[in-house]
Amino acid sequence: MKPTIDPHPWKLTESSWNPEHQILSESLFALGNGRMGQRANNEEGFSGKHLQGTYIAGVYYPDKTKVGWWKNGYPEYFAKVLNAVNFIGIHVRVNGEALDLATATQVSHFHRELDMHQGLLRRTFTATLANGLSVRVEAERFLSIVDDEVAAISYKVTVEDAATVEVVPYLDFNVVNSDANWEETFWAQQGHASTPGQGHVHAKTKKLDFHVAAAMHCQVSAEGQALNAHASGREGYVESRYNATLPAGQSVHVLKYIGVVNSLNAAPEQVVARAEEQAQQAAAKGYEVLRNAHADAWIAKWELADIRIDGDDSAQQGIRFNIFHLLQTFTGVDARLNIGPKGFTGEKYGGSTYWDTEAYCLPFYMASTDQSVAKNLLIYRYKQLGKAIENAEKLGFTDGAALYPMVTMNGEECHNEWEITFEEIHRNGAIAYGIYNYIRHTQDRSYLAEGGLEVLVAIARFWAQRVNWSDAQEKFVILGVTGPNEYENNVNNNYYTNFMAAWCLEYAAECAQWLATEQPADYAELLAKLQLDSDEIEQWEAIRENLYFPYSEEHQVFLQQDGFLDKELIPVNELDPAQRPINQKWSWDRILRSCYIKQADTLQGMFFFEDRTDLDVLKRHFDFYEPLTVHESSLSPCVHTVLASRLGYKKKAYELYLRTARLDLDDYNHEVYQGLHVTAMGGTWMSVVYGFGGMKIVGEDLHFQPFLPEQWTGLSFHLRWRGALLHVQVAESGLTVAHKDGPDVTFHVGGMAHTLKCCETFHA
Amino acid sequence: MKPTIDPHPWKLTESSWNPEHQILSESLFALGNGRMGQRANNEEGFSGKHLQGTYIAGVYYPDKTKVGWWKNGYPEYFAKVLNAVNFIGIHVRVNGEALDLATATQVSHFHRELDMHQGLLRRTFTATLANGLSVRVEAERFLSIVDDEVAAISYKVTVEDAATVEVVPYLDFNVVNSDANWEETFWAQQGHASTPGQGHVHAKTKKLDFHVAAAMHCQVSAEGQALNAHASGREGYVESRYNATLPAGQSVHVLKYIGVVNSLNAAPEQVVARAEEQAQQAAAKGYEVLRNAHADAWIAKWELADIRIDGDDSAQQGIRFNIFHLLQTFTGVDARLNIGPKGFTGEKYGGSTYWDTEAYCLPFYMASTDQSVAKNLLIYRYKQLGKAIENAEKLGFTDGAALYPMVTMNGEECHNEWEITFEEIHRNGAIAYGIYNYIRHTQDRSYLAEGGLEVLVAIARFWAQRVNWSDAQEKFVILGVTGPNEYENNVNNNYYTNFMAAWCLEYAAECAQWLATEQPADYAELLAKLQLDSDEIEQWEAIRENLYFPYSEEHQVFLQQDGFLDKELIPVNELDPAQRPINQKWSWDRILRSCYIKQADTLQGMFFFEDRTDLDVLKRHFDFYEPLTVHESSLSPCVHTVLASRLGYKKKAYELYLRTARLDLDDYNHEVYQGLHVTAMGGTWMSVVYGFGGMKIVGEDLHFQPFLPEQWTGLSFHLRWRGALLHVQVAESGLTVAHKDGPDVTFHVGGMAHTLKCCETFHA
Repeated sequence: MKPTIDPHPWKLTESSWNPEHQILSESLFALGNGRMGQRANNEEGFSGKHLQGTYIAGVYYPDKTKVGWWKNGYPEYFAKVLNAVNFIGIHVRVNGEALDLATATQVSHFHRELDMHQGLLRRTFTATLANGLSVRVEAERFLSIVDDEVAAISYKVTVEDAATVEVVPYLDFNVVNSDANWEETFWAQQGHASTPGQGHVHAKTKKLDFHVAAAMHCQVSAEGQALNAHASGREGYVESRYNATLPAGQSVHVLKYIGVVNSLNAAPEQVVARAEEQAQQAAAKGYEVLRNAHADAWIAKWELADIRIDGDDSAQQGIRFNIFHLLQTFTGVDARLNIGPKGFTGEKYGGSTYWDTEAYCLPFYMASTDQSVAKNLLIYRYKQLGKAIENAEKLGFTDGAALYPMVTMNGEECHNEWEITFEEIHRNGAIAYGIYNYIRHTQDRSYLAEGGLEVLVAIARFWAQRVNWSDAQEKFVILGVTGPNEYENNVNNNYYTNFMAAWCLEYAAECAQWLATEQPADYAELLAKLQLDSDEIEQWEAIRENLYFPYSEEHQVFLQQDGFLDKELIPVNELDPAQRPINQKWSWDRILRSCYIKQADTLQGMFFFEDRTDLDVLKRHFDFYEPLTVHESSLSPCVHTVLASRLGYKKKAYELYLRTARLDLDDYNHEVYQGLHVTAMGGTWMSVVYGFGGMKIVGEDLHFQPFLPEQWTGLSFHLRWRGALLHVQVAESGLTVAHKDGPDVTFHVGGMAHTLKCCETFHA
Repeated sequence: MKPTIDPHPWKLTESSWNPEHQILSESLFALGNGRMGQRANNEEGFSGKHLQGTYIAGVYYPDKTKVGWWKNGYPEYFAKVLNAVNFIGIHVRVNGEALDLATATQVSHFHRELDMHQGLLRRTFTATLANGLSVRVEAERFLSIVDDEVAAISYKVTVEDAATVEVVPYLDFNVVNSDANWEETFWAQQGHASTPGQGHVHAKTKKLDFHVAAAMHCQVSAEGQALNAHASGREGYVESRYNATLPAGQSVHVLKYIGVVNSLNAAPEQVVARAEEQAQQAAAKGYEVLRNAHADAWIAKWELADIRIDGDDSAQQGIRFNIFHLLQTFTGVDARLNIGPKGFTGEKYGGSTYWDTEAYCLPFYMASTDQSVAKNLLIYRYKQLGKAIENAEKLGFTDGAALYPMVTMNGEECHNEWEITFEEIHRNGAIAYGIYNYIRHTQDRSYLAEGGLEVLVAIARFWAQRVNWSDAQEKFVILGVTGPNEYENNVNNNYYTNFMAAWCLEYAAECAQWLATEQPADYAELLAKLQLDSDEIEQWEAIRENLYFPYSEEHQVFLQQDGFLDKELIPVNELDPAQRPINQKWSWDRILRSCYIKQADTLQGMFFFEDRTDLDVLKRHFDFYEPLTVHESSLSPCVHTVLASRLGYKKKAYELYLRTARLDLDDYNHEVYQGLHVTAMGGTWMSVVYGFGGMKIVGEDLHFQPFLPEQWTGLSFHLRWRGALLHVQVAESGLTVAHKDGPDVTFHVGGMAHTLKCCETFHA
């Protein structure tokens, strides 16, 4: 049961109405502008199954956790993405009957459209109400990316027969989170006021004191005449009521301008005035002006970020859908914000930031947006270093060791399953990898002195304390961890975790050395601040050199963990399909003792460091692990697509790509109603650019080794690389790289280095 | 902060009043009669910190579980020991002022006494109320073990100065569980009625429809004259109000007879009438008669069950305290009942039955009570076999394999931590061991055909499916388990679990063979019922022979699990005491990757099967594991006491014994307020009889190898053994075994066999 999305290169369109699809379409057609976002709820309301959701970036609630058995060190709360003021609402009554697609006797000419190129949501339909009257509605709205505290709605109701139409634009802050653990409300109303056509509501969170105010300014006309409003309000709610008695075929047209301001960006006592000012200024500019500026800004974003796929509209639509949601979730203007797994499209998964950001999303932002966007994602972690150190202290670590949380809003851990909270410590490696990846991509090392090295040292200190010496192995070991493959818990010597630990120790030392050489004053200051000395760095080296890695001589592969070969190794394709997905069919113990892999684990390390992995080694590992992988994480297929591409497993690469490209659009996992898999969308981008586009960073060097899936006739994308802008085209006729802007770029194709200046073109 | 319990061989006495001790004393002085039990709450009520608790055996509530992250196969509910009707209550007012030791301005001559020899709870005190008046109270009560649906209270109030005393005996069913997960109430009132001096209340549980009725019959007199009552009631509550205007030095005396009947033992529509009849008949007999019959029955119980320790009143009091609570928790008359970890002394740990029963409690009941008592504990498991098979099916097992639950009331699993619910599967071994232990102790094999072999086959089938073949080890392995040491989770090849699995397969086959030979008709019927054949039994044998056990050649010990030697092995005595108990100081991951052992694990197997373990092997394992053991389970010290005794580690044995003997009396773990560690009391009994008493079963043979702790001058106990009754005395002068009743008994001392007839005595 899922909406039919018509194929279109730039749009999501839905051309039939089914009330059961509404809750899914609300996710798919969601809008965001980095500062706020919302599900594609109907302006006029909907009494059928739906999930009302408006979310303000960085505004969250520390909900009480729900846990059966407490463990020492568990967090006290679980941060929730917070449903905030409903500012899109416009009640509509026709001869007194409410317009509601759930109760309409007929809905025809339904068309819903998300114009991704311009960032506009449109909806038109004709509805026949229970009283027999029919109206035609044309609605369009957007959240401005030019002024990210502004939204605007154009909503036009046309009557088929003469009728009295009442339209009531409103703001409603009486909202709840559908996933509140104890059915609590999270907002305390702070005031409201209304005058005809205008009004505001203001609330603050019951904990943490985030203030949010929304203000509206409405212009309503009928038959070209402005209508007068009757304003009213109650706690958390304001409205302006307009009535028009219309002859057949005439319309009432609502323009609703909204300002939404929160206390991350304004003093609490200023949020109301600022919101009113925003609404006022938006109204003064007018809808067309606002919309055009917004659409132009979107078009400009696409200039850098677009991927074009020729010959396959469905794939084209899929990749643009992913890019669109990434761009509207995080715009990179604020280092306090990050990328929640569901972005602004749902409440699920609470806390905003996972290791997904560094592992799956950062590459997209580095390649497709201004360099400052990716850097702000790094700075976000530096801002939370203190909390990461506190988090490690709760687990018994000392001396400035940091363990970044698994799930967080403000740097504090929010997750409480011991096998993840305490043991899925590889996430620390991804934080360091993000720094490494940013530097190799941009060559911008400024972050090291600005906080990056502090982060790396704190992470290195964690690993140095987390290992222990095994007399039996005569090596350092890392016991009791959960790797990226969460279908194994509390294992010893997870290869990926050990690998990342060793690499973190190495990279922290290398960066320290770099800073010592290049910025000795900064380095000296840092040594003093961190009480770091060369003995400690040498100790890191000693651990790194003597860290144990489980290995099978028989299979010539690193083992996912100690004892992996004691399992029954039955390939996934021999499993009874009725047993899948195993996470819905099997008890946890059965999953754990099985060989099945949720997402790339050993292979994740080889993906991160493909320049350290020979192709034949990669092939052995891929051939050993991929057949045991059930890909039951949205983050799994993308990594395997890239690796399969490297190995020339073209069919496999494309097959896995299909599982990631339209995951949400085709609702593979029957969970789109909860929201989209926004962070997995970064993985889809990598599938295309790293996989089929063949982009690869070896050491410091950029490589291309593309191939075109046989279903496609062409693939092209822009790529920001160290200040330059490249345009890469893969066609049946070969690879074309055009230098569009910036300094010279050297890249390798087929073992040969090529250097392009602006605006040269390379073809092979 | 704990009550001072005066040393006394037969009594618990407390001779000073401190309101902060009340909640602890309520646990320590608790009463039970197998059918019901209650904390030592004050009859007159107490507004200070306390935990009101009356519990009816077998009557529980399926409370909603509280769990953060659901796993497939988790139970739908968590059974709660259910707080039931408060039937002890007697409000007292003196010139209108309520008697309440929390508000009294002075409490003197306080004496609380649990007479364990006669099963009586007494309390006397003088209290000065806020209005300046002083009263003397003498209270005594008991729950009859002659008629286990009857309780009686004698409560006498004497005024120092002339005053009007109002006494109000009542029944109150408006009770809650303090540990209700969602603050729900569990009882639905079904009716109440009262007449002067009499009344009843009747409620049923909101789920499962357990009905409980309590009735009272009161006789109240002042200065030798019966008083008239004023009866009243409201939902769930009835009372009779008596007023007496007393001259100085005179008393009002309440005799309250209570009948408590529940629908496990009567039709729901009969519980009220039966309760009224019980109260009525009790009143007709009179308090003295009832009490004397009850006290005589207790004295008779002690004839069999007592352990006498000479020279150490504190130790004497401790062991009798343990025996007393075991005897009042489970009397063995009803195979639907079992031994909850807290008995009738608190709500904590919900569900009633753990593997504690078979592993720690069964030996006491076999040796100290009628054989039928222990057998009923076995039958309990047979009654729940169907549910154990369903439980295994939920986890993917088939063909009649059974996994007994970790925690249960009715056979359904109630626990939901995956590492325990799904992985602490060794409990299945303890169920089988209970059968084996019963048979070797009693030589009664009747249970095998009556259900025991069905249980053993279902357990064997579980293990046969739970192993998997490891190509790497060329052995069968058991992956992903939690052993008795719960400070390790999801480990591979836990030695104890593997050992028990192998033994279960062996023992099921052996018992099948026995039944085939001795009761071929029963066996044939069973084969058909279970669809069992010789191929399946041979497969058990093949698995048993090829099961892997982790072993260290270097240390010459079986390893607790794979990889154990990768840990840092730092003895507990080198741990900073500030870090202990580690389960309160460390996060779970740190506990897991440490070497520290919560309770006997590898050693538990050697304890169960000491006849299969040579002393030098035992010594190596004890010397290896005990120093790593933190004994943070109440079930830990006892096993180690017995093993240390075997090894001649007398000091260690006594040191560990002290941690179990007075665990609750001295409130070592600061948790007595929640209730007592009733199942651990069976372990204490084993410490004394198996440890110092040196009782040991080798193959089929009874051995004694006693030693007397130097703090003691003598130890003696009775022992039921295969229909005979022995009295064993250990003194400085040596061992004396007196045959008191029944068939001849052969036992071994110092390698020599001795056979005694009734009523011979052996001395060595």
